[in-house]
Amino acid sequence: MKTAVFVEPGKVETQDLPKPEIKQPTDAILKIVRACVCGSDLWWYRGISDRPKNTPVGHEAIGIVEEVGSEVTDVKPGDFVIAPFTHGCGHCAACLAGFDGDCLNPSDDEVVGYQGEYLRFKNANWALVKVPGQPSDYTDDQLNDLLTLADVMATGYHAASSAEVKKDDTVVVMGDGAVGLCGVIAAKLRGAKRIIAMSRHEDRQKLAKAFGATDIVAERGGDAVKAVMSLTDGAGADAVLECVGTEQSVDTAVKVARPGAVVGRVGVPQKADMNTNNLFWKNIGLRGGIASVTTDDRNILLDAVLKGEIHPGKVFTKQFDLNHIADAYAAMDKREAIKSLLIVSQ
Amino acid sequence: MKTAVFVEPGKVETQDLPKPEIKQPTDAILKIVRACVCGSDLWWYRGISDRPKNTPVGHEAIGIVEEVGSEVTDVKPGDFVIAPFTHGCGHCAACLAGFDGDCLNPSDDEVVGYQGEYLRFKNANWALVKVPGQPSDYTDDQLNDLLTLADVMATGYHAASSAEVKKDDTVVVMGDGAVGLCGVIAAKLRGAKRIIAMSRHEDRQKLAKAFGATDIVAERGGDAVKAVMSLTDGAGADAVLECVGTEQSVDTAVKVARPGAVVGRVGVPQKADMNTNNLFWKNIGLRGGIASVTTDDRNILLDAVLKGEIHPGKVFTKQFDLNHIADAYAAMDKREAIKSLLIVSQ
Repeated sequence: MKTAVFVEPGKVETQDLPKPEIKQPTDAILKIVRACVCGSDLWWYRGISDRPKNTPVGHEAIGIVEEVGSEVTDVKPGDFVIAPFTHGCGHCAACLAGFDGDCLNPSDDEVVGYQGEYLRFKNANWALVKVPGQPSDYTDDQLNDLLTLADVMATGYHAASSAEVKKDDTVVVMGDGAVGLCGVIAAKLRGAKRIIAMSRHEDRQKLAKAFGATDIVAERGGDAVKAVMSLTDGAGADAVLECVGTEQSVDTAVKVARPGAVVGRVGVPQKADMNTNNLFWKNIGLRGGIASVTTDDRNILLDAVLKGEIHPGKVFTKQFDLNHIADAYAAMDKREAIKSLLIVSQ
Repeated sequence: MKTAVFVEPGKVETQDLPKPEIKQPTDAILKIVRACVCGSDLWWYRGISDRPKNTPVGHEAIGIVEEVGSEVTDVKPGDFVIAPFTHGCGHCAACLAGFDGDCLNPSDDEVVGYQGEYLRFKNANWALVKVPGQPSDYTDDQLNDLLTLADVMATGYHAASSAEVKKDDTVVVMGDGAVGLCGVIAAKLRGAKRIIAMSRHEDRQKLAKAFGATDIVAERGGDAVKAVMSLTDGAGADAVLECVGTEQSVDTAVKVARPGAVVGRVGVPQKADMNTNNLFWKNIGLRGGIASVTTDDRNILLDAVLKGEIHPGKVFTKQFDLNHIADAYAAMDKREAIKSLLIVSQ
């Protein structure tokens, strides 16, 4: 079967590899319908983070269950599912509390290769999210919306829920990548009245506005702080979504928060150490981490997509097939695409 | 009038100073009934933090309104009030959001000298908390309970509310000082099912249990983490109250939290920099800071005291009068008292 493989920094190619097989009784084999490239894939693509060479890649997909292990009862062959990048067991204290991204029963048995024709998915019983009907029941746009629930929309939502965005809040969203843009959608979905998107790229500003941003701040650093303070009468934002992870972005996020606000962060921290006194003396909270994909999909996001209330699939601004995987990565690397879609089968 | 004055590290004495007068139209003059010594007073008493010499001290009291400025309408002479250490204006974004400890309208006009016969209190209109009736309507124990609402009980509650303690939670409380003990009360008040108090002093363990602690962990550091993990089947606590502020205590607080839990901290951070990656990868939140005294007193704490549901006044294990202020400080410095009460007038 065809699967995208990381060869070396700057080089991803489609190779013909053996179709995966059930290894654990809790596994499922999925036939992938659509997959996509994540901003975090660019780290190893660009050689910023290490990744073993010649490994299958991708961690976001939707597909059809082809086969299930003996202990899988929640999904059956033929079911249309979202394949989250997380694999919560569904019964540990973390999963039960809604933090399936930090499942307490991880296994060394890593799942790789969502950007391919077939995928072995572990903890299929709980972690897969069933979608009603079949892919053919949905339009292309709807399939794209569903695909975002495997990671990017759930991650944007995690920023908003970690920041405890509530009705009528004024929210600042740091970052105009696909996650930040989904953060705008999430803030609106949770009832924010005013959404200030920090963005300096015209195409992304436009999408942020389409998603519900009421204000755009193009400045960075101290100027960005001034701009937000001016927009909020000197008070700062009720909630801040940090969807970048750089030291400057985290610093700005804290500075634009009003006392008592929470910075919800999903941008992987570039720097571990941080001056937390700045949080303490303003009662600013810091929450966030790996998204609660399965939990949030089941409780709110799938419903919002099925009802057509949100359209996160618009973050896919270019589409490719597996034969053009190199182009899909290059388009994101060169910022020609906000997020690259892969049509695998239909 | 008699007022406690910081002379130099290790020396607090009662001096005869002029009675304070109204300076702002939003001021009130209070006749103090009871005051107390705070653990944080020990910092300058011990010379750990700087404080100008020959300055009146204390920031917790209950008293009677003697005189009000022209703009004060919420309280009138004769009213019995709690005098919080915070002085929220009541109308800025921080106060309105319930974070009056971080009021956005601070003034340079510092209020000092709660440990004295009279006190000038600023922002009296909103920041003072009215108590029904007169001091003579209450027992000594009830007056002590009310006094804790000026700081220590509200601060313990702030740790619990910052940690988002909810019904049936398993909660860890770091610190067995008066604040930590009040944190135990707060966790129980918010419905915690299991409260693990980290304490290695027998008298404090006993009080923690009386306040609702279900388990005591006397170990520190790695052994404390092991003990909590063993008590929680390896999951960690649903909420952690950090009432110490040392690097070790904050580190332990993060390590005993289950994924998704929040560490609510009120211990003034000893060290600014902290590795926040440990938070991110387990979705552990960090909240807290200066207590929302007025807000929480009005919304929940005063009611709980008046109904006799909580008895935080038990943290006063020794009592003194202004003529023995030096003994009141020494008792806390030598850990002979959990918290020293000052009977000023009755």
